[in-house]
Amino acid sequence: MKRRDFLKVTGIGAAGAATLAAPAIAQSMPEIKWRLTASWPKSLDTLWGGVEVMAKQVAEATDNKFQLQTFAGGEIVPGLQVLDAVQNGTVEMGHTASYYYFGKDPTFAFGTAVPFGPNQRLNQAWYMQGGGRELLNEFYKSYNVTSFLAGNTGCQMGGWFRKEINTVDDLKGLKMRIGGFAGRVMQKLGVVPQQLAGGDIYPALEKGTIDAAEWVGPYDDEKLGFNKVAPHYYYPGWWEGGPMLLGIVNLDKWNSLPKYYQTVLELAGQSANSWMMAKYDQLNPPSLKKLLAGGTKLHSFSPPIMQACLKATKEIYAETSATNPNFKKVLDSLNGFTSNGYQWFQVAELGYDSFMARNPQG
Amino acid sequence: MKRRDFLKVTGIGAAGAATLAAPAIAQSMPEIKWRLTASWPKSLDTLWGGVEVMAKQVAEATDNKFQLQTFAGGEIVPGLQVLDAVQNGTVEMGHTASYYYFGKDPTFAFGTAVPFGPNQRLNQAWYMQGGGRELLNEFYKSYNVTSFLAGNTGCQMGGWFRKEINTVDDLKGLKMRIGGFAGRVMQKLGVVPQQLAGGDIYPALEKGTIDAAEWVGPYDDEKLGFNKVAPHYYYPGWWEGGPMLLGIVNLDKWNSLPKYYQTVLELAGQSANSWMMAKYDQLNPPSLKKLLAGGTKLHSFSPPIMQACLKATKEIYAETSATNPNFKKVLDSLNGFTSNGYQWFQVAELGYDSFMARNPQG
Repeated sequence: MKRRDFLKVTGIGAAGAATLAAPAIAQSMPEIKWRLTASWPKSLDTLWGGVEVMAKQVAEATDNKFQLQTFAGGEIVPGLQVLDAVQNGTVEMGHTASYYYFGKDPTFAFGTAVPFGPNQRLNQAWYMQGGGRELLNEFYKSYNVTSFLAGNTGCQMGGWFRKEINTVDDLKGLKMRIGGFAGRVMQKLGVVPQQLAGGDIYPALEKGTIDAAEWVGPYDDEKLGFNKVAPHYYYPGWWEGGPMLLGIVNLDKWNSLPKYYQTVLELAGQSANSWMMAKYDQLNPPSLKKLLAGGTKLHSFSPPIMQACLKATKEIYAETSATNPNFKKVLDSLNGFTSNGYQWFQVAELGYDSFMARNPQG
Repeated sequence: MKRRDFLKVTGIGAAGAATLAAPAIAQSMPEIKWRLTASWPKSLDTLWGGVEVMAKQVAEATDNKFQLQTFAGGEIVPGLQVLDAVQNGTVEMGHTASYYYFGKDPTFAFGTAVPFGPNQRLNQAWYMQGGGRELLNEFYKSYNVTSFLAGNTGCQMGGWFRKEINTVDDLKGLKMRIGGFAGRVMQKLGVVPQQLAGGDIYPALEKGTIDAAEWVGPYDDEKLGFNKVAPHYYYPGWWEGGPMLLGIVNLDKWNSLPKYYQTVLELAGQSANSWMMAKYDQLNPPSLKKLLAGGTKLHSFSPPIMQACLKATKEIYAETSATNPNFKKVLDSLNGFTSNGYQWFQVAELGYDSFMARNPQG
C-alpha cells in the first residue's frame, strides 16, 4: 500500500483553521477508528487494564487520530471467540490468550504458555529475540491474523483445592477446573478436567461439583472468592510459567495501516505488556498477604507430583509433535531457548532472588 | 504550551500535493530533530543497542517527523557527563545510568540500582506502579531533567577475581574495580575500591594492579576479555539486582514537546527497555557456556560474605538516611515495595524457576 492511499482530507480542523487560516488542510495523520474486542470482563482490571492502557497510548501517541474502541468479552462476541471475530473481520483487532484456541490446533498454545515452558522473562525474550514472533505469525497467517506482544501475568498459581494433595494417587478422580493443554496433562494422571467460565467456578467449587480450580494468582483469584470455599492454595502453576497476552490484528486491516500506525500499535502493546506485569507485581503481594491472614494454606506441589506432571507433559509433546509439524517446529524453538535461558537464569537471577527472599529488607 | 504553538506550516509535501491538490498543507506532526548523548560506546550492542532501538521507534512512530540523532559516549561529552549535558541544554536528551551521578547526591543511585535492591521485575514495577518514577522525577527536577524507563540489564554478575575469595577476611586489602554505592559498601569490608573506565580494566587486571573487577554479565564481560586474566567468576552482583537505564530529557525541552511526542518518546523508551532485557536474556546464555567451556570457574559468593555485605549496606543506608532526607524518602519507598514484592515473588516465580533450573527441557 502506498502512503497516498491512506491520506484523507478530513476537512478544516478547528485548531488549524484558527491559527493558520489555510484554505485547505491535509491531515498527515489519517483519522482511524478501530474496534478491539477482548477476552476479559471489565472487572479484571489487570487483564482488561492492559487493554485500556494500550488504547490510551495509541490515542495519545497519535494526537487522538488513531483510536481503539474497546469492548469487553461478551459485548460483541464471547471472550473465547476473539480470534474468530478478528479472523473474519467482525472487528479489526483483539486482545486475547492464544491458548484459548488450542482446540483448533495445539500450536496456538505457544502464543500464551505451555506446561514447563519459559518464565515471563524468557517467554518475552523468545517472542522478541528468539524467533518466537516470526514463527507464531507465520502460523497465525493461515488464520488471517498477525500478533504483537501485549501483556503477561507472570507465573501463575497452581490453583485451589478443597483437600490437600500430597501424592500422585491423590490426583486420581479429582475433578478440577483446568483447560487446554494442562487439562490433557492432568488427564494422563487421572484428573477429570473441567472447562468452566470464570463466573461458574465459585458455585461449582462451593457445591463440591468440582474438587479444585485454577485461575490466575492471588489478586485475580481473591476477586472470585475461591479462598472461601477451598482452603489449600498450591504453587507453582507449571502450565503457566509466564503466559503472554497478545494483540491480534486482522491481516488485511494490518496491511492497510500506515507503517507508523503499525509502529504505534506495537509500541502501545509493549507498553501494555510492561504495565500489566508491573500491575501484577504490585497487586499480588498484598492480596497474598490478605489470603494468608484469612486462613488460606499455601503449599508447593510435592516433588513426585511435579515430576509426574513433567513426564506426562513430555509424553503429550512427543505425541503431538509426531502428527503436527507446526507444533513440533515451534516446540523445538521454544524448548531450545528455554533450556539455554535457564542455564544462565539460574546463576545470577536465581542466586540473587533466593538470597533476597530469605533476607527481607525494609 | 498550547497545541497551536507547535503547529508548523511546512509547505506542500510531495505525497499530499500529488493526491490532494490542496493549495496549502498544514503539518499536524511538526518536524523535530533532537540530539541524544549516551553513556555507552557503540561496541556495547546491548546498552547502545537500546539507544538505537529507541531512536528507530521514535522515527518510525512519527513517520520520521521526530528524529533522535544518537551519539555514543565521548562523541559530544564523556559517557559519565550525560546528565550535565542534558541539564545545561547542550543536548536535548540522554541515555544513561543514573547511579553514575552518585557523587552529586547518593539519591541518584535509585534511578539505576542499589545494593540488595529489587530484581528487574520488581525494579520496573516500583518505577512504573510503585511511585518510583514520580519520586525520582521530583528529585531530578532540581537538575532540570525528567526521566523515563529505557532499559535494564537484569541481575549482573559479581565480577572477576584473580584468586578465590571464600571468607570475609579474603576481601581485606583486595583492590577491586567497583564504583559508587557498592564501592562504599565494599570499603567497609576492607576492599580498596577503584574507579576505572571500561577500557582500562583489562590491562589493570592483567598486570595485577587490581585483583578483581566487576562489569556487567557474561556477554558484555566476555567482550572485554576478563576471563583471560582472572579465572574466578562470582555471582550474584548484589549491588545490581535489576539495574534500570533511563532516558533523561532536559525539562524545558520536554515541556516544549507536543503531548503526543512525549508519549511516543516514553513508548519508545519502554520498547527499548523490553528489547534490552530480551537481548541480554538471549545473549548471556551462550556467552556463559563459552566462558565455562574456556575454563572460567563459576562461584557463588559464600553466605558469610553475602551477610557481611548486607550488614555493611544497611549501615550505609542508615548513615546516608540520617543526613539526606531525599535519600531516605526514596529508600523507604523502594524497600517497602521490594520487601512486599519478594514475599509474593518467592512463591510461584521462585518455585517455578527452581524446578525449571533443576529439570532442563529440550
